[in-house]
Amino acid sequence: MAKQEDKFKQVIAHAKEYGYIFSSSEIYDGLSAVYDYGQNGAELKKNIKEYWWRSMVQLHEEIVGLDAAILMHPKTWTASGHTEAFNDPLIDNKDSKKRYRADVLIEDYCEKLEQKAQKEIKKAKKRFGDDFDEAQFVSTHPRVVKYKQQQKEILQRMAKSLDNGNLYDVKALIEELEIACPASGSKNWTDVKQFNLMFATKLGASAETATDLYLRPETAQGIFVNFANVQKTGRMKIPFGIAQIGKAFRNEIVARQFIFRQREFEQMEMQYFVRPGDELKWFEYWKDLRAKWHQSLGINQELYRFHDHEKLAHYANAATDIEFDFPFGFKELEGIHSRTDFDLSAHEKLSGKKLQFFDPELNKSYVPYVIETSIGLDRMFLAVFSSALKDETLEDGSRRTVLQIPPVLAPVKAAVFPLLKKDGLPEIAHEIIDELKWDFNVIYDEKDAVGKRYRRQDAAGTPFCITVDHDTIEDRTVTIRHRDTMEQKRVKIEDLQGILDQEVNMKYWLKKIK
Amino acid sequence: MAKQEDKFKQVIAHAKEYGYIFSSSEIYDGLSAVYDYGQNGAELKKNIKEYWWRSMVQLHEEIVGLDAAILMHPKTWTASGHTEAFNDPLIDNKDSKKRYRADVLIEDYCEKLEQKAQKEIKKAKKRFGDDFDEAQFVSTHPRVVKYKQQQKEILQRMAKSLDNGNLYDVKALIEELEIACPASGSKNWTDVKQFNLMFATKLGASAETATDLYLRPETAQGIFVNFANVQKTGRMKIPFGIAQIGKAFRNEIVARQFIFRQREFEQMEMQYFVRPGDELKWFEYWKDLRAKWHQSLGINQELYRFHDHEKLAHYANAATDIEFDFPFGFKELEGIHSRTDFDLSAHEKLSGKKLQFFDPELNKSYVPYVIETSIGLDRMFLAVFSSALKDETLEDGSRRTVLQIPPVLAPVKAAVFPLLKKDGLPEIAHEIIDELKWDFNVIYDEKDAVGKRYRRQDAAGTPFCITVDHDTIEDRTVTIRHRDTMEQKRVKIEDLQGILDQEVNMKYWLKKIK
Repeated sequence: MAKQEDKFKQVIAHAKEYGYIFSSSEIYDGLSAVYDYGQNGAELKKNIKEYWWRSMVQLHEEIVGLDAAILMHPKTWTASGHTEAFNDPLIDNKDSKKRYRADVLIEDYCEKLEQKAQKEIKKAKKRFGDDFDEAQFVSTHPRVVKYKQQQKEILQRMAKSLDNGNLYDVKALIEELEIACPASGSKNWTDVKQFNLMFATKLGASAETATDLYLRPETAQGIFVNFANVQKTGRMKIPFGIAQIGKAFRNEIVARQFIFRQREFEQMEMQYFVRPGDELKWFEYWKDLRAKWHQSLGINQELYRFHDHEKLAHYANAATDIEFDFPFGFKELEGIHSRTDFDLSAHEKLSGKKLQFFDPELNKSYVPYVIETSIGLDRMFLAVFSSALKDETLEDGSRRTVLQIPPVLAPVKAAVFPLLKKDGLPEIAHEIIDELKWDFNVIYDEKDAVGKRYRRQDAAGTPFCITVDHDTIEDRTVTIRHRDTMEQKRVKIEDLQGILDQEVNMKYWLKKIK
Repeated sequence: MAKQEDKFKQVIAHAKEYGYIFSSSEIYDGLSAVYDYGQNGAELKKNIKEYWWRSMVQLHEEIVGLDAAILMHPKTWTASGHTEAFNDPLIDNKDSKKRYRADVLIEDYCEKLEQKAQKEIKKAKKRFGDDFDEAQFVSTHPRVVKYKQQQKEILQRMAKSLDNGNLYDVKALIEELEIACPASGSKNWTDVKQFNLMFATKLGASAETATDLYLRPETAQGIFVNFANVQKTGRMKIPFGIAQIGKAFRNEIVARQFIFRQREFEQMEMQYFVRPGDELKWFEYWKDLRAKWHQSLGINQELYRFHDHEKLAHYANAATDIEFDFPFGFKELEGIHSRTDFDLSAHEKLSGKKLQFFDPELNKSYVPYVIETSIGLDRMFLAVFSSALKDETLEDGSRRTVLQIPPVLAPVKAAVFPLLKKDGLPEIAHEIIDELKWDFNVIYDEKDAVGKRYRRQDAAGTPFCITVDHDTIEDRTVTIRHRDTMEQKRVKIEDLQGILDQEVNMKYWLKKIK
């Protein structure tokens, strides 16, 4: 656990130091759970978007894009259920005036029970050494059994009460467990109330009718309300998909874990409209294809796992998460959901507009079923970044920090160095940049010794370094060094374009998805 | 004027019919002054962004990107002056309860005076025919002189009162001119009040301290508050720039002119940090370079003009607009402003953090001066789209509607047709798509006669159509047709990739900027 925390801290610090992620408005001490992407972060984010968009829209004849606004008619959220039911259970401490998520207070209590159990296990492990049978110990040691059992009972009771909207029992549970306010130590709690997570604002059109608006809490509804327009003007035939990348906002009360859970975040979603009855076939298809998309990037596959939902949301008839092993453990990275006709039917009902497809093969109209693939762009960023960051011990015993971002996603593709700041070497380096810049994001660096420049680019995630030296003047060759292998090769300047193209051109990476 | 209005209506209708722009949440009767970009619009918008980003960030060694959040610490807007002074003067009619922008009511009154003048001019033109000297007529005809003079006096008085914050006089002017409420005809007005254009929302972190937040009304401040982080972690040396594309929001009371003035819109901004004293040199540099960017797209240059500001904002010491001839006349498309050190100094003062650059050549630290280039992405979209839409009469007397979007920006680069839906032609067409799709956004169409398919792609803005016929089976050649010239050529399938690359690859277009 301590190691995990250290790793997480290193990720956050490295993201700042190398211009990937800054706290929003940091000069004003930041805005909680909102982050800005710096000069390298903006490029990495842009490359992830492009990789997703091309794989979804450009490579699929039957999928088109959309870019709907963040502000939508408020009835959208009535139909989707967000106005009524997009809530967190909150509780205030009367003494400290601090507000908490009731479920998080209870989960934190359980986490402490778990820590006690882990402490016993660790102690026993130390005592018994190699002979220690952890599974047996956990199932027989009285205190550990009790800690585990208590956790289970508490979480089950909480889940049941929340599901039934029995907020009195959630409060009762907090009181029974004697949970105190982390800030004040007081146990003087208000009732638990539901708090809507949508950010509200007002559209001030006229004195009498200022309209209440919400910042969209998800991008999916922008696709559903545009279903008929896209289908008709794009002459789409089922099955077809609409893909979108865009911002969404949630007024999270407990927002932590860096960019994993932000108040402002970005989603990459695709809704695939299919014939009712075919949805589970397409669900499997997209589960498979999305896994292949992740695999194509070459990230360690042990960091991924599928988690099928046992309990389904009211609108779904199948759902799975692609989870990733973040520095704080396995968490949802992407969801693939079979949403039935829930959303389109709800909008059809409330708007009075037909949201159907006439199927010429069946000779009838119906509301299509929907398979949704929804990935958090910021989460994908964090997955790529955190898994890329490594501390290596080299053969000579020295250490280096390297950010092994897949070259196709790396912000800068190559750094070009003159060995020395003289003898015309900088001029040649700039000439090389002027050739390469049309196809690749490349940078120039002349400061410090070459070894130090290599380390700097390793840590920044740049896959290639190109060094111009005195031989270059004679034979128009340069040294190209690979970030991950640290191998160096002598190549002709005229071949650089082709070498980089083979390594970083998106199309070669996308071809691996099949 | 009537012709202009017709053109504008055609633009809006065409944008919807071909999947470029839909009203937001149209099934709920739309949200005023908010629009969604459809399947073709999303691609055009994406291509404009990419063309701007590459020209700014990828092609300039000294410019880097940024992607700051929409939500910022509220002190940002205190420092920038938006909390205090980002207002519209509003007036309510007491009878109709309708709210108006006071300045727009007065401008509309002047517009009516102008229409009267134009009517006199038209009448005289008709009477005198070819002999008519309009300039002389305008300067001598008593009624026309009066109408022109009245307009001038009214607008000058209004400008002066607004500048001085004398809202009583703005109301007095409305009363003196006997302006009536367009809805009710009533002249029963409230006082004029200032209304802040920022959308407000609340960040609900705790019971006692829910923070008031604003949706950013401009992206520029995201760059200023990140100045020190980017400069330091990116090791930037002056002069250097930070570029950003992102959403901004303004609660416009009078929002009209389609996507030209939206409540939610997108900006492409670059702030260039320079040594104080050098700013006017860089202002000229960016004026020139931005004009060349527009020129590189091949849009009719008569639709562009520069408009230097005579009256400068308090923070600027030079400013020019690049105006475009939209379907409703010349309006601002892009602004190039010399903003001095106004913003950085204001943030330095309020935050207490140093926002300076140590200049090794001068051996001293200073707050850099800023040249800003700021273009409305939606406005650029409208400029491209409206200037591209043409009705042509062909040689045979028939007519076609064609959308001559620059090929580099066109949403779909080529449509591939089988001449007939049999004999293996569709299969070959799909094979061609499967080859081309890795590099280009291409689509398949087999419906209707080929002539009709050509017209459909002309109207949708697709620069190339590729037709597979029976000869293709024999000799692996196809017909490629150019949207603008309607020329058809017979080419080998294996050459298609190279032909399209020459025509649409962004790098060849970007190379024209110099």
